[in-house]
Amino acid sequence: MTYCLGILLRAGLVLASDSRSNAGVDQVQRVGKLSLLSTSPDRFIALLSAGNLATTQSVASELEQAMGSGEAGADVALTQSLYETAELVGAKLRQVLARDAAYVQPEDPTASFLVAGEIAGHAPRLFQVYSAGNFIEASERSCFLQIGETKYGKPILDRALRLDSSLEHAAKLALLSFDATIRSNLSVGMPIDLMRYRAGSFTPEVVTLEEDNRYWRLLTDAYSRGLSELVDRLPSPPSDLG
Amino acid sequence: MTYCLGILLRAGLVLASDSRSNAGVDQVQRVGKLSLLSTSPDRFIALLSAGNLATTQSVASELEQAMGSGEAGADVALTQSLYETAELVGAKLRQVLARDAAYVQPEDPTASFLVAGEIAGHAPRLFQVYSAGNFIEASERSCFLQIGETKYGKPILDRALRLDSSLEHAAKLALLSFDATIRSNLSVGMPIDLMRYRAGSFTPEVVTLEEDNRYWRLLTDAYSRGLSELVDRLPSPPSDLG
Repeated sequence: MTYCLGILLRAGLVLASDSRSNAGVDQVQRVGKLSLLSTSPDRFIALLSAGNLATTQSVASELEQAMGSGEAGADVALTQSLYETAELVGAKLRQVLARDAAYVQPEDPTASFLVAGEIAGHAPRLFQVYSAGNFIEASERSCFLQIGETKYGKPILDRALRLDSSLEHAAKLALLSFDATIRSNLSVGMPIDLMRYRAGSFTPEVVTLEEDNRYWRLLTDAYSRGLSELVDRLPSPPSDLG
Repeated sequence: MTYCLGILLRAGLVLASDSRSNAGVDQVQRVGKLSLLSTSPDRFIALLSAGNLATTQSVASELEQAMGSGEAGADVALTQSLYETAELVGAKLRQVLARDAAYVQPEDPTASFLVAGEIAGHAPRLFQVYSAGNFIEASERSCFLQIGETKYGKPILDRALRLDSSLEHAAKLALLSFDATIRSNLSVGMPIDLMRYRAGSFTPEVVTLEEDNRYWRLLTDAYSRGLSELVDRLPSPPSDLG
């Protein structure tokens, strides 16, 4: 499995992905699932991927190869909007699946993506491309999207994330969401790739947090301790609870 | 969907279930998923169920009907151990599925159960019966079992629940686990049936918590507020995070 998270804020974007890829429990690898598709002074586009690794790597590689080709409908550097970029990712996914799926089944050949970025003149946008190639967009009312092993890390985001959260606050919540997932599910693992992007900067900051990262240990230890203390402080259920 | 949780402690058992049943989004009902199969001065057996409602209700009803029949291999009041009780639930599930499954498909006819209780002379035990009718048991190393919509509510249990937690502490954590699930997933809903059982008592305490239950509101409000404050107190990620 995999866990990828995209957060859309007024302030910009926060993207994060884990690094575990497994086929069964024997073949476990460390894989990057976040790729920077395009950065230039007027365009920033990132891709996060979950699902069949051969499929996701084909889609990302072929999109990268086509970059700079100048071919409309294939070159991510030419899209006029992030919507068009998401369409392009969906179309490439359909193409790869049409080529490979019949050979891969009964194993699951499908994949899904988060497409996030900013093109000069527009606000940052965030899309989730389904395995069918169609897609949905994050909005003010629903400012984060997840793919892969999404459930363990959702409650903390539902509780504390807001569209007007700062990049720093959202990055902290993203890491706590990964901490919850990694503790509860073996198929999601360190290191975490974390991208913080301030709207209008066209300069994403990407870092990789290994297990021994100082801030990661500080954050997750303090959260664990704080949560235990919080639960202990909460009143116990009385015997006449009804 | 459904969420049911069983916790095995040195002190006894804590069991909890939600009450939402839905077929699509139109047909939404309130349904009890926790049934007390048997209570007598030397035996306490409870059943929690998830999955196809016709299947789970058939299994529970037929087990209840057979109680007191004196028929070995059918009468839950006669089993010599909880292991035997779990076998009996699994066998009944297989029987119901053999009868109904072909008519129900392509809808999913399957169901799963938690079987928990104590029979005099033995420690309390907790089992999870899979839809295949086979089952696993909770142990010192893995003291809770979940069925239905299990993932949202797992992190808080992974963090804070211990085999030697008190009944009160475990009940508090169970409710917080349900709170996380209900906030993040529409298919799990109030009221919550909560059973606290002290080992050796043969007298379970069952309460139903509606949304306006005083303790439920106090607990979940204080937890929400405390968690927000905790997250705010944690240090923000520095810019040189790597």
